[in-house]
Amino acid sequence: MRIVSYHFEDERDYGFLILGNSVIPRDFLESALGMTLPRDVRDLLPDRELVELIESVINKVPVESISLEELHLGPPIPNPGKIICLGLNYLDHALEAGMEPPEGMPIFMKPATALTGPFDPIIKPRHVEKLDYEIELAIVIGSRCRDIEPKEAYENIFGYMILNDVSARDIQFRDGQWTRGKIMDTFAPTEPCLVSKEEVGAPHNPQDAHDREWGGKAELLHIQYDQEDPRDSLDTESGVTLEPGDIIATGTPAGVGVFQKPEPKLLQPGDVVEMWIENIGTIRNHVITIE
Amino acid sequence: MRIVSYHFEDERDYGFLILGNSVIPRDFLESALGMTLPRDVRDLLPDRELVELIESVINKVPVESISLEELHLGPPIPNPGKIICLGLNYLDHALEAGMEPPEGMPIFMKPATALTGPFDPIIKPRHVEKLDYEIELAIVIGSRCRDIEPKEAYENIFGYMILNDVSARDIQFRDGQWTRGKIMDTFAPTEPCLVSKEEVGAPHNPQDAHDREWGGKAELLHIQYDQEDPRDSLDTESGVTLEPGDIIATGTPAGVGVFQKPEPKLLQPGDVVEMWIENIGTIRNHVITIE
Repeated sequence: MRIVSYHFEDERDYGFLILGNSVIPRDFLESALGMTLPRDVRDLLPDRELVELIESVINKVPVESISLEELHLGPPIPNPGKIICLGLNYLDHALEAGMEPPEGMPIFMKPATALTGPFDPIIKPRHVEKLDYEIELAIVIGSRCRDIEPKEAYENIFGYMILNDVSARDIQFRDGQWTRGKIMDTFAPTEPCLVSKEEVGAPHNPQDAHDREWGGKAELLHIQYDQEDPRDSLDTESGVTLEPGDIIATGTPAGVGVFQKPEPKLLQPGDVVEMWIENIGTIRNHVITIE
Repeated sequence: MRIVSYHFEDERDYGFLILGNSVIPRDFLESALGMTLPRDVRDLLPDRELVELIESVINKVPVESISLEELHLGPPIPNPGKIICLGLNYLDHALEAGMEPPEGMPIFMKPATALTGPFDPIIKPRHVEKLDYEIELAIVIGSRCRDIEPKEAYENIFGYMILNDVSARDIQFRDGQWTRGKIMDTFAPTEPCLVSKEEVGAPHNPQDAHDREWGGKAELLHIQYDQEDPRDSLDTESGVTLEPGDIIATGTPAGVGVFQKPEPKLLQPGDVVEMWIENIGTIRNHVITIE
């Protein structure tokens, strides 16, 4: 299942992508099913039965759809309860930043007001000098959970999307705390689609090698991990309740602009940032400034 | 106006405190006024006309009320879009922490899931060793705004409340980034009441001396300030849209537990934390742990 959120004739709503370029709007599907669907996409995610019903219908029954091109796409979850971002989760990014892999697990949060659509502009505020990007795979939570074991993590994930962790490096580094350089409006462009875990074909088994590559995807729901061996965190707890629609951005690999050699390559008005992750999607945002 | 949020017979709702110990529930007031009131308190805050109508009615017209003691009070804004917390905003706290006043403006965020009621327990997770408190005056935003001038700040504030910035010092200091030690469930106990600015009698004039004492309250809406002279930040911008119900916690003065001499005085299960701010209110939370 691929969920999109959009503005259409002044209404914000969500729908389901089929055949790569058509969207079945929520209300069209309601008519076809003869039942009401949650108005807020966050209320759909934990309802596994309803999700499976929709999944079985949209790909088999002809339901009226709209061309993707007619819609102005927004972030698939426009109003998440929280967006938690992991810092220095990839070893190669920690090294390019000249930092040791962290002893703890530095994280920060972005507000929902930072979210923007997959093809909307990134606005460079006048007071920001060093604007940069970070490509991140984001997990979207499917069900309310807290202090879950890594082996239970997969069942609490609804799906995945790209998130560009846009960062004002001058403010981030001057403050020491990263938050103020990360929370500005449009500093979190996201995916056209929230892609369900079944669609991505993510590993069911947290022991999977691919999983270990980025610090233990399953353990991220613990918001606690160990760089050497993610398995060490089995007995820890995060103390944080995660809710349907919450977003966890899993950190960037190496390659951000500020650490490019021989010269930093920072974002300027007029630049276009394009990011893609296999099986997930592509986002393309141009940088503008406001006079 | 003093707004409370509560659970009553399994319903979460809000109401208005009168005479210090009685609450007029939203639906009682609806009957008295013969009109509907917003179901979400965040939708009430920006409606100045409605707020003034309610204000004029609750103190003059007899409306049925409930005793405060019958209600289980929750945080006045249970679902804020964001909670932004200022770090090292008070010079004396920076000095007790052995830090220079920051060159930038370190901030962090807490999620809505960290909020808890004024008399609810603070839960110490098993993995937290050094639990601490910070008493903070929090601003609650009344209207959607961005990049406002300090002189316009006051009109965008709805009111004030206490927020206890509960902190796991071991995690906060180990991570370097403060967020993970600050975001756990129950790590943000708040006020019984959201107290409107008119009720508090806050200074209209940002040049007021009291205002300067804590780093320039008006400038906080800029999320950008200058320790030497808050007036220097007049031309800056935050780039962050603030929405009705958003909370800005303004930082703690000196006196937190971890820097007490000769020994740190950290929170242990069984302890009770009581905080009050003049004209605002009192919160009292006991510390428990979960086995």
